Amino acid sequence: VAEKKIKTRERIVLVSLELFNDKGEPNITTIDISNELEISPGNLYYHYQGKEAIVNELFARFEAEMQALLDSPLRKTLGLAEYWVYLQVIYECIHRYRFLYRDLADLLTRYHRLKNRFNLLLSRMVRVCTETCEEMVTAGVMDAHPNEIEALAENMVMTMTYWYGFQVIRSRQSHPEADIDRAIYLTVALVAPYLHETQRNFLQDAADLYKNGLLDQP
Amino acid sequence: VAEKKIKTRERIVLVSLELFNDKGEPNITTIDISNELEISPGNLYYHYQGKEAIVNELFARFEAEMQALLDSPLRKTLGLAEYWVYLQVIYECIHRYRFLYRDLADLLTRYHRLKNRFNLLLSRMVRVCTETCEEMVTAGVMDAHPNEIEALAENMVMTMTYWYGFQVIRSRQSHPEADIDRAIYLTVALVAPYLHETQRNFLQDAADLYKNGLLDQP
Repeated sequence: VAEKKIKTRERIVLVSLELFNDKGEPNITTIDISNELEISPGNLYYHYQGKEAIVNELFARFEAEMQALLDSPLRKTLGLAEYWVYLQVIYECIHRYRFLYRDLADLLTRYHRLKNRFNLLLSRMVRVCTETCEEMVTAGVMDAHPNEIEALAENMVMTMTYWYGFQVIRSRQSHPEADIDRAIYLTVALVAPYLHETQRNFLQDAADLYKNGLLDQP
Repeated sequence: VAEKKIKTRERIVLVSLELFNDKGEPNITTIDISNELEISPGNLYYHYQGKEAIVNELFARFEAEMQALLDSPLRKTLGLAEYWVYLQVIYECIHRYRFLYRDLADLLTRYHRLKNRFNLLLSRMVRVCTETCEEMVTAGVMDAHPNEIEALAENMVMTMTYWYGFQVIRSRQSHPEADIDRAIYLTVALVAPYLHETQRNFLQDAADLYKNGLLDQP
């Protein structure tokens, strides 16, 4: 019985995540979730006392995964190509929990307890972008002043934070598939002009590698 | 009488804009507006049949002002410093109607008729940024490939569109003063690395000119 309880709890979380990502969290009720799971609303309530509890659980998972990525000591020894993979892994985390980013301002207004925690993540992201750029300068692959790195890091985090919402607004559909290849490409494009020599080649390689993202654009 | 009617109509629009910008449009009712104007709700209703009509009027004004700026033939003959002023004028327009940008996704969901019109403005902004960069390349002040300009233009418009919302989220207050100097600085920082020679000096000048924006940051 204990095992089945855990399984139902976990299924609630995973199905909610899928519904939130596909339809937008404000458009999904606990009834929709229990219908999708084919369990009674009472059974759902036994595990999670309302939608806010589920959103909190999902946010806690997103927060833990993102923290783990941002704290990763691996990035200290990265080469240029691995920085790119690192950025991809971060975007994949954002993509897994993209319902948070669909209308971030509204989400943080409705679940205001998440606001400070989200802000801590944003600050941490700005710091990691800054440190990564500084490491690239030290490694001799990048040429940028501290002033430039400070502005670059903030612009990178803005692109990471708003790319998905920008897609939702610009698309005719309400819930477009997130095209993270395109988001990665745009973020790399912010960094590329500060890279030594390889600058043009790097962006050109990006254009080739992430061509699908580019071609899919209207 | 006709003159007084026009005056009241205009006062309603201006006071609504001020309240929307200061407190956030979702937090303001037509009662708040009539109270602020010291007129009766009936008198307000005589001029505008509900808040949506006022939002529509304000959006139409924003749209007309932004269109006029984006269509400005003057920018064809701009030097580097004037491009900067041009960017400032665009940000001042955004700042005048900043309530639209506070939570754009939510606004365009609630007033869904505005979505296509806002998207047309966004597309027009991307095109103007693209053309401006192309002009700078032709004028020999910028060195950038078409691929790079395409990504740069999209990143510029994302910064313009989300800077204010990003401030609202990151601030402890709900309605921080928009620090457009900082927004201009971050937008110039996107372009600066593609500028010839003057690159470093240009950004350094920016840092000096827009020092207040920088110093006011937490």
